[in-house]
Amino acid sequence: MPRKKKDLPRGKLKVAMLGGLYEIGKNLAVIEYEGEILVVDCGLGFPDDDMLGIDLVIPDITYLKENEEKIKGIVLTHGHEDHIGALPYVLQQISPPVYGTPLTLGILQSKLDEFTFEITPDLNVVRAGQKIKLGCFEVEFINVNHSIPDAVCLAINTPLGMIIHSGDFKIDLTPVDSPMIDLPRLGELGNEGVLLLMCESTNAERPGYTPSERTVGASLDSIFFKNADKRISIATFSSNVHRVQQIINTAEKYGRKVIINGRSMQNIVSCAMDLGYMHAAPDTLIDINDIKRYKPEQLTVVCTGSQGEPMSSLYRMAFSDHSRIELSPNDVVVISANAIPGNEKLVNNIINELFRRGVSVIYDAVVSDVHVSGHACQEELKTMHALTKPKYFMPIHGEYKHLATHRNLAIFIGEKPENIFISEIGKVLEIDSKGARWGGTIPSGKVLVDGYGVGDVGSIVLRDRRHLSLDGIIIVAASVSAESGLLFSGPEIFSRGFVYVREAEEMMDELRDIAAGIIEEFYDNNDRDFTAMKNRIKDEMAKYISLKTKRKPMLLPIIMEI
Amino acid sequence: MPRKKKDLPRGKLKVAMLGGLYEIGKNLAVIEYEGEILVVDCGLGFPDDDMLGIDLVIPDITYLKENEEKIKGIVLTHGHEDHIGALPYVLQQISPPVYGTPLTLGILQSKLDEFTFEITPDLNVVRAGQKIKLGCFEVEFINVNHSIPDAVCLAINTPLGMIIHSGDFKIDLTPVDSPMIDLPRLGELGNEGVLLLMCESTNAERPGYTPSERTVGASLDSIFFKNADKRISIATFSSNVHRVQQIINTAEKYGRKVIINGRSMQNIVSCAMDLGYMHAAPDTLIDINDIKRYKPEQLTVVCTGSQGEPMSSLYRMAFSDHSRIELSPNDVVVISANAIPGNEKLVNNIINELFRRGVSVIYDAVVSDVHVSGHACQEELKTMHALTKPKYFMPIHGEYKHLATHRNLAIFIGEKPENIFISEIGKVLEIDSKGARWGGTIPSGKVLVDGYGVGDVGSIVLRDRRHLSLDGIIIVAASVSAESGLLFSGPEIFSRGFVYVREAEEMMDELRDIAAGIIEEFYDNNDRDFTAMKNRIKDEMAKYISLKTKRKPMLLPIIMEI
Repeated sequence: MPRKKKDLPRGKLKVAMLGGLYEIGKNLAVIEYEGEILVVDCGLGFPDDDMLGIDLVIPDITYLKENEEKIKGIVLTHGHEDHIGALPYVLQQISPPVYGTPLTLGILQSKLDEFTFEITPDLNVVRAGQKIKLGCFEVEFINVNHSIPDAVCLAINTPLGMIIHSGDFKIDLTPVDSPMIDLPRLGELGNEGVLLLMCESTNAERPGYTPSERTVGASLDSIFFKNADKRISIATFSSNVHRVQQIINTAEKYGRKVIINGRSMQNIVSCAMDLGYMHAAPDTLIDINDIKRYKPEQLTVVCTGSQGEPMSSLYRMAFSDHSRIELSPNDVVVISANAIPGNEKLVNNIINELFRRGVSVIYDAVVSDVHVSGHACQEELKTMHALTKPKYFMPIHGEYKHLATHRNLAIFIGEKPENIFISEIGKVLEIDSKGARWGGTIPSGKVLVDGYGVGDVGSIVLRDRRHLSLDGIIIVAASVSAESGLLFSGPEIFSRGFVYVREAEEMMDELRDIAAGIIEEFYDNNDRDFTAMKNRIKDEMAKYISLKTKRKPMLLPIIMEI
Repeated sequence: MPRKKKDLPRGKLKVAMLGGLYEIGKNLAVIEYEGEILVVDCGLGFPDDDMLGIDLVIPDITYLKENEEKIKGIVLTHGHEDHIGALPYVLQQISPPVYGTPLTLGILQSKLDEFTFEITPDLNVVRAGQKIKLGCFEVEFINVNHSIPDAVCLAINTPLGMIIHSGDFKIDLTPVDSPMIDLPRLGELGNEGVLLLMCESTNAERPGYTPSERTVGASLDSIFFKNADKRISIATFSSNVHRVQQIINTAEKYGRKVIINGRSMQNIVSCAMDLGYMHAAPDTLIDINDIKRYKPEQLTVVCTGSQGEPMSSLYRMAFSDHSRIELSPNDVVVISANAIPGNEKLVNNIINELFRRGVSVIYDAVVSDVHVSGHACQEELKTMHALTKPKYFMPIHGEYKHLATHRNLAIFIGEKPENIFISEIGKVLEIDSKGARWGGTIPSGKVLVDGYGVGDVGSIVLRDRRHLSLDGIIIVAASVSAESGLLFSGPEIFSRGFVYVREAEEMMDELRDIAAGIIEEFYDNNDRDFTAMKNRIKDEMAKYISLKTKRKPMLLPIIMEI
């Protein structure tokens, strides 16, 4: 039963996202009630095309650092990078306890092992179906289906009412090796009264239902059946434990051995096996060093590289850079994944190379059902709304188009437009006994990780990288007398990424003359304003280069005063 | 009737592609018989992701330059960039006559007008159904359907037999405003005997048939019907004249005026109108300056920007940078195009921004049939093979996967594997009375255009741009005595695109000290090998930077000897 209004406490509930809005990835939700903070997920994002040289992006956690003592815990919904990937960086700065299901924490632990920490991270296992008390919050872990096992959504009981945070989910009525999403519990919570639904929006544009993971199993079976005389290699996301399990099952059915290839694939498989999320007959998995003991048609290779990553196992196999596996027309390669936006060309490169080797390639453009999504499509999203019947709704995890489309779905099934809040990162939704409204902002943003540097590459550096990438740089260096401005040495011209200098000597000579002329002019005029001199050199060179080449390289005059 | 073997001349037919194989775009075929050359198409390609700063790519035409006097003509199949776009560059170097249909040459002429030529290009109109004699070749222009009007395939009669070059085509049984592809003539040629089919492969992966252009008309009608109270803006490819015609027709049916917006859209529409390929009632098209005279619901805007191009009309409308059109929830925007691979994110940016303005956005993810392809799918390709019954077959226009899939289709319908030739650019297929075989290579490659520079950016420059884009550059400059090696000035450290220097002063100081130490050491040792000195400085700095940041900026030591 929903609480009656008069029972409601006078406090304010604040909900803000530090990522996962207007973007895919970097998911992090902050839920705060009267000085107590609960964090949900702490993911990384991948750099935009204009973030040259950046490895990854994490949320700006200024607000969490400033309020560290208020944080009761970080609760994780599942083990994907966009939900846990920022933790190795964040836990170097703040050290609240972390809560997650066994597989989620297993995957997290293997990531954390690559970093050093002042305080050992405090990881706490919670299983689906269990509840934990974190300050004024009671958090229930509810099983959902997703493209990784042990994923949960969260029922967060607050003094003002229940918040449901969907995590990432789909409704799989015939899941592999794991229970169905706990729809009954969600319905029960809906009947008890849900104050706020925070629901993922990744597939909000797609009508219908996401097919069951089992449909992939059926496809795999048919591929194995038809290719009894060939070696079968299958690339997929390493975290898709159920997919790998289905490959193992199919291999066993057809009497094949399985080789797990690629570092991240081996890590996750061994973690999942240890924790009991994956199983195989004792002699199914073989070491790649024993590959020669079997005929190709007795083998199945499960490998990384479904996104075309240049260091991955599949890439090395395709480009003959793999020490143990040489592909030939005797091979079938299945790409059991979709290309994440931005990776299409990388995946394409591999497919083309496989074709060149005469390999039979099975991928989503030519065969359906070799991959299914892990996210809810429109009918599943509607089902989530129908079960939880939220008073307020905040679409999360998506670009603006996904959030807006999710809002339209909610309105279509009867939710009130004024109770739906499309937020932005850092924007605070405030809920109290009187209602819900926007309530200011907290610091938020993108922190760029480049090598060991976290946050030391900002917009100026990126602007320079962009400039350098387009037309290169031209440096003109000269030594002059600090007293008289007399030219001692140079000017010399250096260029990188502009033109091949040996074929552009005339232009380089001309640039040298321009710089020399200006230095001389300043000397003749007794003008020792070297900053003005540098600006003149820059301007004149830019004019000449633009006229001659229609390009705009970066220009850097260096005047050494002696 | 096929010629009998004894009638066949003793000459050799050579067929080579200078582009359009293992790539999309840059289409150019060279057909040569005993000292006479025919060129089919002369297209440009777009740069790969690793070709930083490159504007476009054209074929290496060394072979054509060296054999200019043998070239009887360049024959064009249609007016798309990937078939005519390299001509402005190529016709500056060689000047054979060019043959094409009226619209193809109209579009080409407006491109050529932006360049200057020593010899005025010699353009010759040929209409579908006509034949021309070029040396020993007789070339028949045969009407096909494609996403631009006036597209043809070519029946090239050579002394050794008939070559069919498909150009780009689809089979549209209900085309808009233009005749159906001339299937009967293709069948007739097939019965007379086709020696070689060179057939495009763009959609070889896609099963079934490409829908008719008219299906888009039906979709547009329903969009206009449902949105009678809103302004409707539609972005599409400017060269898709039939699409624009259907928009005009629909606007007229619903009593709306049409504004043509965006430079390339205006150019093509005016070219197509002048040549009679497009028509509108006298008062349908209005000037954008008159926009205020009409209510939003009386207007349709046809605009550029369907690929998300940052300077396009739709982009400026979405990001409030358009002087005349301000979008609001009173607008519907239709993206009547698919995103070309690589443009997905750009298109996405616009869609998200339109959603943010409350615009109703109709695009392929949510509504089917707002765009159809201009290329033949598998059943259409099979039909082309079935009609022409070629002795030899060369799949063209595609990445390797497309070519290989097209070969598999041909084998599936009964062609002999040994008569199918998947070529590479520059590879020569030689055909004579005895048969067909590979016959060496001619020069080929990618010539990169960057600003006014054609071919002056090569692999070294690109490698440097790539390096600069990832981690920037650090320059260390010092003046030393040429005689003694004594340090006169510096060393000074300059960096661009590495880190924001104000926040990394310590690192910059350290780098300065490293360089100063090495210069001093050389002075102390009386060592004036400045090249060795520069290498030492580079190595030591690289070591320090890698340890400290895990990055590898470009390093450039400048030692000025005085």
